[in-house]
Amino acid sequence: MLKRYLPILTWLPHYTLRLFGADLLAGVIVTIMVIPQSLAYAILAGLPAVVGLYASLLPLLAYTLFGTSRTLAVGPVAILALMTGAALVNVATPGSTAYLEAATALALLSGLMLAAMGLMKLGFFANFLSHPVISGFLTASGILIATSQAANLLGISGSGFTVVELAVSLTANIANIHWPTLAIGAGCLGFLVLMRSRGKALLQWLGVGKGLASLIAKAGPVFAVVATTLLSWQFALAEKGVAVVGIIPQGLPPFSFPSLDLPLWRELLIPALLISIVGFVESVSMGQMLAAKRRQRISPNQELIGLGSANIAAAISSGMPVTGGLSRTVINFDAGAQTPAAGAFAALGIGLVTLSFTPLLHHLPIATLAATITVSILTLVDTQMIRQTWRYSRSDFAAMAATIALTLVEGVEAGIIAGVTLSIGLFLYRTSRPHSALVGRVPGTEHFRNMARHEVESVSHVALLRVDESLYFANARYLEDTVYTLVASHPELEHVVLICSAVNLIDASALESLDAINARLKDSGVTLHLAEVKGPVMDRLKNSDFLDELTGRVFLSTYSAWSELKQPRE
Amino acid sequence: MLKRYLPILTWLPHYTLRLFGADLLAGVIVTIMVIPQSLAYAILAGLPAVVGLYASLLPLLAYTLFGTSRTLAVGPVAILALMTGAALVNVATPGSTAYLEAATALALLSGLMLAAMGLMKLGFFANFLSHPVISGFLTASGILIATSQAANLLGISGSGFTVVELAVSLTANIANIHWPTLAIGAGCLGFLVLMRSRGKALLQWLGVGKGLASLIAKAGPVFAVVATTLLSWQFALAEKGVAVVGIIPQGLPPFSFPSLDLPLWRELLIPALLISIVGFVESVSMGQMLAAKRRQRISPNQELIGLGSANIAAAISSGMPVTGGLSRTVINFDAGAQTPAAGAFAALGIGLVTLSFTPLLHHLPIATLAATITVSILTLVDTQMIRQTWRYSRSDFAAMAATIALTLVEGVEAGIIAGVTLSIGLFLYRTSRPHSALVGRVPGTEHFRNMARHEVESVSHVALLRVDESLYFANARYLEDTVYTLVASHPELEHVVLICSAVNLIDASALESLDAINARLKDSGVTLHLAEVKGPVMDRLKNSDFLDELTGRVFLSTYSAWSELKQPRE
Repeated sequence: MLKRYLPILTWLPHYTLRLFGADLLAGVIVTIMVIPQSLAYAILAGLPAVVGLYASLLPLLAYTLFGTSRTLAVGPVAILALMTGAALVNVATPGSTAYLEAATALALLSGLMLAAMGLMKLGFFANFLSHPVISGFLTASGILIATSQAANLLGISGSGFTVVELAVSLTANIANIHWPTLAIGAGCLGFLVLMRSRGKALLQWLGVGKGLASLIAKAGPVFAVVATTLLSWQFALAEKGVAVVGIIPQGLPPFSFPSLDLPLWRELLIPALLISIVGFVESVSMGQMLAAKRRQRISPNQELIGLGSANIAAAISSGMPVTGGLSRTVINFDAGAQTPAAGAFAALGIGLVTLSFTPLLHHLPIATLAATITVSILTLVDTQMIRQTWRYSRSDFAAMAATIALTLVEGVEAGIIAGVTLSIGLFLYRTSRPHSALVGRVPGTEHFRNMARHEVESVSHVALLRVDESLYFANARYLEDTVYTLVASHPELEHVVLICSAVNLIDASALESLDAINARLKDSGVTLHLAEVKGPVMDRLKNSDFLDELTGRVFLSTYSAWSELKQPRE
Repeated sequence: MLKRYLPILTWLPHYTLRLFGADLLAGVIVTIMVIPQSLAYAILAGLPAVVGLYASLLPLLAYTLFGTSRTLAVGPVAILALMTGAALVNVATPGSTAYLEAATALALLSGLMLAAMGLMKLGFFANFLSHPVISGFLTASGILIATSQAANLLGISGSGFTVVELAVSLTANIANIHWPTLAIGAGCLGFLVLMRSRGKALLQWLGVGKGLASLIAKAGPVFAVVATTLLSWQFALAEKGVAVVGIIPQGLPPFSFPSLDLPLWRELLIPALLISIVGFVESVSMGQMLAAKRRQRISPNQELIGLGSANIAAAISSGMPVTGGLSRTVINFDAGAQTPAAGAFAALGIGLVTLSFTPLLHHLPIATLAATITVSILTLVDTQMIRQTWRYSRSDFAAMAATIALTLVEGVEAGIIAGVTLSIGLFLYRTSRPHSALVGRVPGTEHFRNMARHEVESVSHVALLRVDESLYFANARYLEDTVYTLVASHPELEHVVLICSAVNLIDASALESLDAINARLKDSGVTLHLAEVKGPVMDRLKNSDFLDELTGRVFLSTYSAWSELKQPRE
């Protein structure tokens, strides 16, 4: 029981020196690798760069205690940063104290929601984001984020949370391009794209071992940061108008007590919910994928608690909403992390950096960070998935296209809400017209098949109607219509048998419809029977008056109904 | 085609003198009967009483043209009046011109939505309100409306749209009870309850014929109105503090051009949508019930257009949102209406009243109207349905209870939204854990049954897994888990056969899950096969790469899979 809620107890007692060595190495590598992206995502959310470091510290320790994935690395991620910025800009001015406070309030709210969902075992909720919707949302968010970085790469001002806002803002300032900034941005962009696409092969060609080559290629952003920081410091580029990170306060994250302002919470409620869901889906799908690679398992409900605790930790340490990040997790996994202790070591590393080394980041150009974001975010754009979905299912594609369009034009919240609503709507629409078939007997057997597709025996005074879906409120009326149409078009009918072999559930609405069908058939002199009712469904029916009212019988098999009814009434 | 969108063309050409006589009589009766409730519902919505008359005029003509029900009577109804009041009070002050304008804007918006939904054939949307949710919503609304009338019956001021608001407001003013008002209110209440419960029997006992007795008993509100108006006029009760209807402008409804103010529309969007849905559900379920009694049919999609046109008509004639009303429809049906022409005659009657007879209503006490509403609304409270639902299904009951509680405590909008969300949520939760079973062969046959329930043959290296539900995003992951658990617990497995006889759909998310299952089983040396894939599902799969990747085969029947695989690999 305790182990279930504190997964650390499952691995810590068996911790060995070998695991320690592997985790420590991974921790050191992650520390160095995630500094650029942590700073970048904080800036993307409109927050001071240091907030990104704060959010990569305590949350990691919390996840080490409560998380079930062995390799997930928690911290600020691009999508959540974008969503955070979009939410905060509605309640406070970027740069103000209120904005910082709202960020911790958002993290707290989202953390509480995640933890509550975990305790209530609502992990299954994540299933309601269909794959095409997730993929469409990530693609559109990637495009949005890349566009939002264009201003930083060009050295102009420009902001917004929709493509329209961004386009207007960029066009208005396009004349003010700051060429030195653009040079740094474009240089980094080229270097990073090269490292990502050809780096490993290039290094191996130069004689570097395969593992090291892969690691160095991944460290592209670190080299870019070091090189451009040195450049910027050497030539005092900040004085020439190149935007740099500037002063980062030294020291551990200050304790923050998130605002308990009710109107603020009310305004952040929906954004916090969406951030929680998107963060959870991103994190858990990656966690499952990586766990599968090592034949481990993660528990979605405990993951909710783990991510919830990480966000609460972010909230009390001046951070921002966090989740399991794609790129930092892949780095952690590739660097050989074996247990969540690797996360704790990375937290210690980041702690060391904030304590002592932040002055080194002073001259880091913002354009370098923008290039880092742009390159890493474009992996989210999944054109192959778009093509596949189009080929496979037009309605899934419609949900995906709507998600992409709304995310781009109306922003991340509208996009994700529209996507979920459409997925659910399309599904309900499909099941609201359940498949049903009139069946007949395969001659000489006890089998019954669809009359429209097979050569089968039938008699005109008995209709054997097989219903291929559970009966519930959304399709109850459709069933009524089907039966009434059947009876209206076959005046010689004496018996209607509903074959319930595929009916796993009859809810209260469907029960009322069955009542109505029974009464209406009675008026027309037609008897209603049921056949092949499953055990649990039958138990339920016995709790209602339906079986007393039923004009006909409940047959165990279609064959026994057939044998009993095939002789017409005298 | 034209007939489909103008159903009047289906009956007008065959109109006879006999039908004319019947419709004319029904029209006259409806005119007299609906005056009290039309006034009362307008007051319930916080509007001047005359708006109720206006809304019973042009909308009826519009429905006569576009509606498909032969007997539905359109006009203001209690629930919509309550919802209208709750919506308008957020955007304007009752009594102001802005409030009146918002009412027509709400009617227009709701009319446009209904008509658009009709043209887009979205009538099936109404199915998403499950019966228990509708019944819970009506019950709670009935209680709310009855409570809101207590102030008028007691002659005190008191208002609100939740039981809390109403209770606070009533308690604060309870000391100011106006005894003459209470006397009129209580007198009417007693009289109306008596007429409703015993009136018909009493009149028959006095020797009145059955049909006439029924009609007179239903006319209770008319007698109450006439008697208390005369009383109030005779004794000048208005001067003694009894609230009366007061001056009602004479003349046909003035033309109104609803405000096109965008922020106002935005605020009214959700209320208009809810009013449209609730109005449609109330109207269409009653229409279907009555049509069934006379073996007629109504078309839900065309009904949307009919109700939409009625609301647009209300919007341009200084009215309020309307729909098919329960009590006025029953009156119309019982009075023998044969075609929608009865509605047109009632509209003419109401027109005559607004033109000439409104001064007669000047002295009508508000308490009389309150008594009328209270008695008619209590038919909505359906305790039997609550008990039945409790017995039959706890989850349906939970949705119903939440709807009732939220409607009472948070108001009609919150109630209906919670009800729909819960219904859909519960359904998705159920289908997100699809029923599946490992099956084995019934010895000596080609039948396969659940191994857990029947004595069947099986071999340890083949798992025959029957999935009893369509595969889609919400249950795709559950299927993955099921298969992985199966493989993990049966190391001797060589083949997994998914029997898809109950699978009517595999959406894009489920396809990805099947891909993942296939890849993961391949890693473990297990072959994945499909069996009994339905035609349409197979066609879809052929549009994807899945069949190329599939490690095993697609078998036509479970038996052929069994015959092929039952010999272990060499």
